[in-house]
Amino acid sequence: MEDEFMEKVQMQSDNGLSEASAVVAGETGSTKEKKEKKPKEKKAPVAVNQGAKGSDLQKQGNRDGMEVKKLQDFALWYTQLMTKAELIEYYDVAGCYILRPWAWSMWESVKEWFDGEIKKLGVENACFPLFVSSSRLSVEKDHVEGFSPEVAWVTRSGNHDLEEPIAIRPTSETIMYPQYAKWIRSHRDLPLKLNQWTNVVRWEFKHPTPFIRSREFFWQEGHTAFATLEEAAAEVLVILSLYQQIYEYLLAVPVIRGFKSEGEKFAGGLYTTTVEAFIPPNGRAVQAATSHCLGQNFGKMFDISFDDGSGKKQYVWQNSWGCTTRSLGVMCMVHGDDSGLVLPPRVAPIQVIIIPILGGKVAETEANMVMAKVDEIVSALKLAGIRVKVEDRKDKSPGWKFNHWELKGVPLRIEIGPRDVQNEQFVCVTRLNKEKTTVALADLATMIPGMLDGIHNAMLRGAFEEYRSRITVGRTWAEFASGLEKANVILVPWCTDSECEESAKKRSGAKEASVSSSENSAESSSDARALSGAAKTLCIPLEEELERFGLPTSLDPSDSCFACARPATKWTLWGRSY
Amino acid sequence: MEDEFMEKVQMQSDNGLSEASAVVAGETGSTKEKKEKKPKEKKAPVAVNQGAKGSDLQKQGNRDGMEVKKLQDFALWYTQLMTKAELIEYYDVAGCYILRPWAWSMWESVKEWFDGEIKKLGVENACFPLFVSSSRLSVEKDHVEGFSPEVAWVTRSGNHDLEEPIAIRPTSETIMYPQYAKWIRSHRDLPLKLNQWTNVVRWEFKHPTPFIRSREFFWQEGHTAFATLEEAAAEVLVILSLYQQIYEYLLAVPVIRGFKSEGEKFAGGLYTTTVEAFIPPNGRAVQAATSHCLGQNFGKMFDISFDDGSGKKQYVWQNSWGCTTRSLGVMCMVHGDDSGLVLPPRVAPIQVIIIPILGGKVAETEANMVMAKVDEIVSALKLAGIRVKVEDRKDKSPGWKFNHWELKGVPLRIEIGPRDVQNEQFVCVTRLNKEKTTVALADLATMIPGMLDGIHNAMLRGAFEEYRSRITVGRTWAEFASGLEKANVILVPWCTDSECEESAKKRSGAKEASVSSSENSAESSSDARALSGAAKTLCIPLEEELERFGLPTSLDPSDSCFACARPATKWTLWGRSY
Ligand SMILES: [Zn+2]
Ligand SMILES: [Zn+2]
Repeated sequence: MEDEFMEKVQMQSDNGLSEASAVVAGETGSTKEKKEKKPKEKKAPVAVNQGAKGSDLQKQGNRDGMEVKKLQDFALWYTQLMTKAELIEYYDVAGCYILRPWAWSMWESVKEWFDGEIKKLGVENACFPLFVSSSRLSVEKDHVEGFSPEVAWVTRSGNHDLEEPIAIRPTSETIMYPQYAKWIRSHRDLPLKLNQWTNVVRWEFKHPTPFIRSREFFWQEGHTAFATLEEAAAEVLVILSLYQQIYEYLLAVPVIRGFKSEGEKFAGGLYTTTVEAFIPPNGRAVQAATSHCLGQNFGKMFDISFDDGSGKKQYVWQNSWGCTTRSLGVMCMVHGDDSGLVLPPRVAPIQVIIIPILGGKVAETEANMVMAKVDEIVSALKLAGIRVKVEDRKDKSPGWKFNHWELKGVPLRIEIGPRDVQNEQFVCVTRLNKEKTTVALADLATMIPGMLDGIHNAMLRGAFEEYRSRITVGRTWAEFASGLEKANVILVPWCTDSECEESAKKRSGAKEASVSSSENSAESSSDARALSGAAKTLCIPLEEELERFGLPTSLDPSDSCFACARPATKWTLWGRSY
Repeated sequence: MEDEFMEKVQMQSDNGLSEASAVVAGETGSTKEKKEKKPKEKKAPVAVNQGAKGSDLQKQGNRDGMEVKKLQDFALWYTQLMTKAELIEYYDVAGCYILRPWAWSMWESVKEWFDGEIKKLGVENACFPLFVSSSRLSVEKDHVEGFSPEVAWVTRSGNHDLEEPIAIRPTSETIMYPQYAKWIRSHRDLPLKLNQWTNVVRWEFKHPTPFIRSREFFWQEGHTAFATLEEAAAEVLVILSLYQQIYEYLLAVPVIRGFKSEGEKFAGGLYTTTVEAFIPPNGRAVQAATSHCLGQNFGKMFDISFDDGSGKKQYVWQNSWGCTTRSLGVMCMVHGDDSGLVLPPRVAPIQVIIIPILGGKVAETEANMVMAKVDEIVSALKLAGIRVKVEDRKDKSPGWKFNHWELKGVPLRIEIGPRDVQNEQFVCVTRLNKEKTTVALADLATMIPGMLDGIHNAMLRGAFEEYRSRITVGRTWAEFASGLEKANVILVPWCTDSECEESAKKRSGAKEASVSSSENSAESSSDARALSGAAKTLCIPLEEELERFGLPTSLDPSDSCFACARPATKWTLWGRSY
């Protein structure tokens, strides 16, 4: 049964989740807070000019557990989670964060998996410069307009002004494509498939949130060129499926694959596909990764053309696709709980933490016996390919250790004391639900890998069911507004017209804005209000995704747009978004 | 015999290379050009505003072979090699380069190997921001002085001036250490061992050279903190040995481990160790990677202290260590030849290129038979863990293909035609010496891995012998000057005094400057003259390195400094350096 479920969730099978349809009605789901509270971001405690260092008490605070519940104040909860689980540290350049090993190791896992997958597709890694000259940056007007307010400019080196300011890349199209024009001459030079793992900088003025919106962030950007639209279009969806797997197979976060509307697509491209995730506590969707078909627009702009074999010059068809460290933030938001992080086993830096239980009364010989058994367990688990660590600090109590590794989200905890060794067993505690199981030592190597897979599946299933329960299916503006009021995302029949989209966006925002401005504190800026208020199109889901989520797939010619009442052409997902 | 040699070279055994001592006299070695010619760096052909694209002829030029010999014009040779072997492309921001897959893949190999090694030492990867506030940057005066003229400053985002300019990291001490002060409280928090793989920016005004000196470059920087000097000092040398292995085990480039003089050490640190490589054609040494013991200087500056268990506050002992993409440039310079790159097998993106020989006269059935055999060979080699590619383009002749893959430096080429298939054999050509061997198909999987190891060993041995032959052992200023005149590096007894070093540097530079300015073209800037002229200390080699190279290790109390005639304390390597 579980396998069957997973097959459906993970394999993107064409068959709908018919059982899941039964749950459609339950839109209200659990009670969730609807109002956005902005994280009270602490300024980084930079020990730059300090003579005295922070008091021990203040330092001790870092080691303590969560002081706020997830549904009580989600934004503050997230901020606490970030530092207390040792994922990041705040920094004195706003919007930049220190990614600590606990976070970076997970990004390395995502990287390793995705890198292996794209190499199978013939993609090669390269590394293009961090800097862009202003003349390059301004070639593609549509494209650059979207980024120009966010571009960081280097104007000085040492004490000297540069002759011409140089931009830090917000993305690399204008860096890479002039080169593509040089490399591609013949149809034999196609396809060209390059990717890079880099940092990019977008000096956004929206409220920064660790991982979700930061000024420097980390991503891969793939840039490919093909002879035909068919090949390009096929790759767009292959990559989109890989992105879905990053979320579902690695991070246990369900996403919906779909197409962006004209208004929400990547400027300058032909069309954009996306995977959209959902954050239950605040009812916001998140654009989780995008795979764009650029068409021939950039090819014509940069003169990327080839001889098609008959002597005729053709422009290439291009794609670009990117996934960022945002993925880690989404995972933390979806899976964290009141005790801290809950990590999906496939990316958890440590999958099993072993805590020997040696109270003061334990004799040294017994302690040695326990530690010898711990060594055996470690060896057996490592042999099974499991990332394991022993927590053997002498200055910490078992209780402190339990809390600490729960806060950090390690999927499984093994507790073993003298009596357990005598009984040839140990106690295994699952972080996700805190259930205790007693396991025979003999079953160690067979049980643990299965338990880890089971945890992954339970996490994905739970999040999938929650996502599904928060999708309102509506046909009218009233139903749409009611879904939004519940902090849900809403699937509605839509005309796909851009003007209709703009007006619906405004209408939804205006209504919400008036509600939230009366309820929110003075703290909320106009930016925050806009963010929390207006809904927009998230995506036009692929039909197989609608089926997978047990949602309606077909429209009648008589169906009309929820917003403008003209004929509807697509079931479209709307909602508030990060 | 070969094994014995390799053991000596690679294992840094304590036994001298007694056979090698016999070669000591041969300092003149091969004839090498002594004068620096600056690369005639092409401006990047940026297809930014172009309506017309480059002519086919111009494009075809990129595919052609080397047009200059290595010893004829080394700088131009290197520049051609960079682009023709598809390692880099020039770019319109000076000092920044596009690293193409052929180069980036080799950096990934270095990264994967070194990352695995440091993880075994308990080092964890993290990621600190690209940006530094000016207040942070200026905390450590000695340290920052060395970098401040090279710091790139962001002063604007979009059209808005920032309130305070923000620097792009030239290195990360001032970014990381305030955090270390926060994380480290007790002796139980030590050691702290972090590393990051990042890009850094140093806006140098010296002539940029791809890989060797660029404004953005890629590196790992390790930053560790210990409770005692002993632990820190031990790690410094462990890392230094790993750097030696990057060069010798991966890149087949011999290096000499040693200590930097006071004048050449990392500013603000306690002492610096280095691996020094040598570029035969121009007689320049290269600082190939450095491992610093920072002592307690940074700890005191940033208040990184801990309770030692007795309630006493102690400052930590710190190290930092870095290795950059410069390593790839050194490898290209050392091993490239008149036909192009010669890649060491352990980092070669493709280790074996298979070229089916199918002339116009070959019948289709025969061609199919060859291609079927090629498939078998590919499978067998992949199974043996070898990176293999088939060159089966139909629009290129076998001759073109031979040249192309020689230019790109693939270690082994397999040629196979219909007659070879009938005879159950193939022809194998070694890039290094262009030797042909006929190999029975049955021996494929056993022969090829051994041949690749043999190529690595031959490359390392050849370069080692050349390096050794270019080390002049001298005792007097006249011998020193004569070695320098031969474009060698010189091992001399030295007093280790900083003033002596400064004066010897100037004296050597003044002499050379007058020689070279009369011979060089107007092109050479004062910077270039300084670079080509002055010699400096490279390192005080470890005794075991002196033994490994068959060089003198001990000094008598009566030995005097080659430069100032006061008592000498160390055999020291001097030379011109990049
Ligand atoms: Zn409409
Ligand atoms: Zn002296």
